Amino acid sequence: MIEKNIYENYSIGFAEDYKVKTEAYCFIFNNNRELFLTDDNKIPLFNQNKLNEFDLEFILFIGTLFDKEVIVANTNNGKDFHTLFDLYEISHDDYQIASKAVLIRDWYKTHKFCGSCGTKTILDEKDMMLLCPNCGQMHYPRISPAIIVAISNDGSLLMAKHSYHKTSNYSLIAGFVEPGESIEEAVHREVSEEVGIKIKNLHYQRSQSWPFPNSLMFGFTADYDNGEIEVDGEEIINAKWFKPEEIEIPSSDISISSWLIQNFIETNDG
Amino acid sequence: MIEKNIYENYSIGFAEDYKVKTEAYCFIFNNNRELFLTDDNKIPLFNQNKLNEFDLEFILFIGTLFDKEVIVANTNNGKDFHTLFDLYEISHDDYQIASKAVLIRDWYKTHKFCGSCGTKTILDEKDMMLLCPNCGQMHYPRISPAIIVAISNDGSLLMAKHSYHKTSNYSLIAGFVEPGESIEEAVHREVSEEVGIKIKNLHYQRSQSWPFPNSLMFGFTADYDNGEIEVDGEEIINAKWFKPEEIEIPSSDISISSWLIQNFIETNDG
Repeated sequence: MIEKNIYENYSIGFAEDYKVKTEAYCFIFNNNRELFLTDDNKIPLFNQNKLNEFDLEFILFIGTLFDKEVIVANTNNGKDFHTLFDLYEISHDDYQIASKAVLIRDWYKTHKFCGSCGTKTILDEKDMMLLCPNCGQMHYPRISPAIIVAISNDGSLLMAKHSYHKTSNYSLIAGFVEPGESIEEAVHREVSEEVGIKIKNLHYQRSQSWPFPNSLMFGFTADYDNGEIEVDGEEIINAKWFKPEEIEIPSSDISISSWLIQNFIETNDG
Repeated sequence: MIEKNIYENYSIGFAEDYKVKTEAYCFIFNNNRELFLTDDNKIPLFNQNKLNEFDLEFILFIGTLFDKEVIVANTNNGKDFHTLFDLYEISHDDYQIASKAVLIRDWYKTHKFCGSCGTKTILDEKDMMLLCPNCGQMHYPRISPAIIVAISNDGSLLMAKHSYHKTSNYSLIAGFVEPGESIEEAVHREVSEEVGIKIKNLHYQRSQSWPFPNSLMFGFTADYDNGEIEVDGEEIINAKWFKPEEIEIPSSDISISSWLIQNFIETNDG
């Protein structure tokens, strides 16, 4: 059983090509970033022999938890893998930990070579850092800040239809923070770019790690100020105001988007 | 004259090994990330001949501003280079733009090779993105989220002395966000790690891009809750509570740290 606050019982450390000494909590992902779970939908506690049954690309030691080793591994194939979305519905606690583990997996896979000079990097044993032995550049995990905003106007919520969404659902205005701007500047810029309006009363609500693939989401509320809705027709197909009763309740509360929509409905309903 | 809100007059685009057609706004940095300024401390508007006088490692076209080309370049040597801190005191507006330009410079220099497979990357012409032609990984600029918090206790402010600071100044508790956590979780973790206390009434105040080297800072206020101050003696040498009159006023308002300290003094000064 892995508990929520892992920090109190977790001791960090890193080692490559690791051989499990006794038993390890094993975060085994496949190339779709899906996680292997046991038959009873738990994160497995495996010894090295059991791990050898998998066709693993790497075994990375990432620390000890309750005196058990913890490893992150990756494989090209296999069964009994579950999406992080599925895992969230199975266990919020396990999702919390797995969503950190998948980010460690991604960092380790995507910083094997130095971006500056192309040299093979070396794993640090204490920090989550891959060092370039040639130019000295240090490669930490990447976190991509992004904003999402619930814009209200006289009891209605602004939502937009994005061309890249396969489903036809409308969603809140969101986008990545650009280099050199604050998150507040990012909100005003994204709103202006996506729907062409001005907003006021911008209020930060909360943040959330969103490992799809590596965002850190910042949720805001705001009020419509002025301007006509204007969409580019390419990235955004349409945008319009929704009354509370016109909004489809999100099926899962996994995302900050769901929280913002739910919060709008509760604040504005009847 | 470059104005504050560049977005309205800026058209983005990218090209490598660029030759200036007419005249370009030139953000020429050296290897210490210092910026070349004209004799009257302006960002230069140069033609290609003038640019050729510099020993440039690269010339990267990054868009047009008021119909002028804009380039970012880097050189190993030369004079009349100024730190971004100096530039801030000369012109806040020019600092704003240069602090974006230096992040573009860094992104371009540090993603020449794909971190996943070591292949030379290819510049995208529209997005700020370097693509790996082998494995398809897309490399965007890196932004590193970090928190900083002003903790109050009965009219006093908690500040700590970090071992890595050459000067002996005390500063606010701060640190990088780790993969998988929210910024609020990051504050509680950093406070616990650095000074061993618990806090309450955590309130987000504002954010700021801090290009030293590539942080996005999130400023918080909080109140002391419980626990005794305990420092590790390695990263943090000492930490203690300061009355408003004991706090040294920051010499520049460039950082969010200065704003938080100033805000504490104004709120608590007798």
